[in-house]
Amino acid sequence: MSVGLSIHDLMTPVAVIDETIMENNIKVAQDYFDRIGRNFRPHVKTHKIPALAALQTAAGAKGINCQKISEAEVFADAGFTDILITFNMLGAARLERLKALNARVDLQVVADNSVVVDALAGRFDADRPLKVLVECDTGGGRNGVQTPSDAMQLAERIDACAGLVFHGLLTYPKAASEAAVEAFLAETVGLLKQAGLECPVVSHGGSPSLFDSDLVSSATEHRAGTYIFNDRAMMRAGMCDLDDCAMQVLATVVSRPTETRAVLDAGSKALTSDLLGFTDHGLLVDYPDASIVSLNEEHAIVDLSGSARKPQIGDQVRIVPNHTCVVSNLFEKLVFHRDGVVTRIETVAARGKVV
Amino acid sequence: MSVGLSIHDLMTPVAVIDETIMENNIKVAQDYFDRIGRNFRPHVKTHKIPALAALQTAAGAKGINCQKISEAEVFADAGFTDILITFNMLGAARLERLKALNARVDLQVVADNSVVVDALAGRFDADRPLKVLVECDTGGGRNGVQTPSDAMQLAERIDACAGLVFHGLLTYPKAASEAAVEAFLAETVGLLKQAGLECPVVSHGGSPSLFDSDLVSSATEHRAGTYIFNDRAMMRAGMCDLDDCAMQVLATVVSRPTETRAVLDAGSKALTSDLLGFTDHGLLVDYPDASIVSLNEEHAIVDLSGSARKPQIGDQVRIVPNHTCVVSNLFEKLVFHRDGVVTRIETVAARGKVV
Repeated sequence: MSVGLSIHDLMTPVAVIDETIMENNIKVAQDYFDRIGRNFRPHVKTHKIPALAALQTAAGAKGINCQKISEAEVFADAGFTDILITFNMLGAARLERLKALNARVDLQVVADNSVVVDALAGRFDADRPLKVLVECDTGGGRNGVQTPSDAMQLAERIDACAGLVFHGLLTYPKAASEAAVEAFLAETVGLLKQAGLECPVVSHGGSPSLFDSDLVSSATEHRAGTYIFNDRAMMRAGMCDLDDCAMQVLATVVSRPTETRAVLDAGSKALTSDLLGFTDHGLLVDYPDASIVSLNEEHAIVDLSGSARKPQIGDQVRIVPNHTCVVSNLFEKLVFHRDGVVTRIETVAARGKVV
Repeated sequence: MSVGLSIHDLMTPVAVIDETIMENNIKVAQDYFDRIGRNFRPHVKTHKIPALAALQTAAGAKGINCQKISEAEVFADAGFTDILITFNMLGAARLERLKALNARVDLQVVADNSVVVDALAGRFDADRPLKVLVECDTGGGRNGVQTPSDAMQLAERIDACAGLVFHGLLTYPKAASEAAVEAFLAETVGLLKQAGLECPVVSHGGSPSLFDSDLVSSATEHRAGTYIFNDRAMMRAGMCDLDDCAMQVLATVVSRPTETRAVLDAGSKALTSDLLGFTDHGLLVDYPDASIVSLNEEHAIVDLSGSARKPQIGDQVRIVPNHTCVVSNLFEKLVFHRDGVVTRIETVAARGKVV
């Protein structure tokens, strides 16, 4: 165990989490939702660690959000009982596991089409019905029914199934489009009311939309994952500052082949190739004018031509990743620290749970 | 266990490997190196599975190539005794592990600078010296000394250390630049000869350069990883056909929100965001005119507007990934099959070994 060591004495690459920043991120988000009187359901895909979800629920979060059945099972095994899985589920083996999970926790799932609804209906029954939210595409361009009347129709189809309970609406919005999201949801809620269909949950989402959630007044809950650590994409979106980024990847300069090229021991298997619209692969905190111009699997190529200060071989560098959620998934363990002293090491328990 | 099942009955996303194609890829490469009379040292970072490295060595490969100390330890534990680690190594904890590994296997490492050489020299001694290759940048633009005379100087420095043995040269070349690579290596070999320095190994590399290795006549061995599975980037490079790609990721259409949009249950946590110069995220084998235009962590967004045939919700699709080596690292297990019937499931033993 490395507890008590300096994080700078660990083997690199390593993903380290500043506990103080993380705790503040949890508190600031929960305070916001407490203030606007809305449930907050953290998405655990960002960290995949039950001990962190426990901090989020202890702060006041209502349940957790998982993305896949295998991820949800890890958190159910860890004692979480209020779980939403925000992914259409199909296939006999998956539905079998879903039924077993529904028997032991308070489970909600989503559907955005009749094939999924009918598959769920064929596997669940009135003894232990499954709660289903209708996923709505309010502009995000991913999953979701396209119109309020389509949402209404699917809700009625769910409501007609003995094994299913229509439980509400869900959307993963396009960023900064609160008015369009609210218009879609409000119209759908109105249609449901006219039809006499109860709609206990209207679930809105996303870290980029977190502090504007109050503008979507129809929503009853908000889901977000990235906010717990924050990252370079969240900084660019104006949602946080560098001091709010709890995760850094520490790497070592292992080569300086030329005056303007440094090579780090962290590549796409540590930082991922996720660009999220950036043209380079992470923020070098101590060398902001240097750029990680390309990644191989275990090498980062850094262009130092714009940087007056140039790191030497053996120097450690700190990287704020473009996208924190994919970095967690690449490491077997995350290292936590306060002021650079290791406080604990947590296994990424749901790492690689993609089914 | 799923042995005997159809791969199409497995939960998706799943990475499946056609054993017949894989065996042929192993044989074709080994036959080539046997024919040109050159050692072949497969890079195990592609699969990270000892059972596959055993197939490669059984076919005639001389030893294996690893990229990190943690990866090498997994293969040493599995019984491999001839291991080359092609990465500059620094740091007290890493050198401690390197020394322990050198005590139990026939180990070779690389260095491209004096800081690394001096660090190695400070940790090893004449009782059990460490073999070191000088890494040369022959045009690849990653690690490596920049000129033959720099290579010569570093070789002399290694040779002067009691705990180190200068063992030769290594390069990871720029693709399709055999003449430049050979010029660099031949000049360096000449300088070493003049100085009376033995140079038993000249290690050339890369799957894209595999079948042109004979053009680099100074080389004594070749390293390559991707060739065992092949992928879309290898197809584009003209190194293989679709029928030579052993790995496919199977995914399911979970949503068809619009006439031209399909959503799959495989995102960046299954396919990775590695583009390798492509503008989309993998080849849809059965829908070659459709395009995976973007990935979220668990969703692939498919544009069907150019595709006459359009998959329906619940349909399974087969994806040849852009870059197979990063896909293996995301799955806990790979599934092997012959003619679609599962033959075995192998744990990706060195998954996540990045230090």
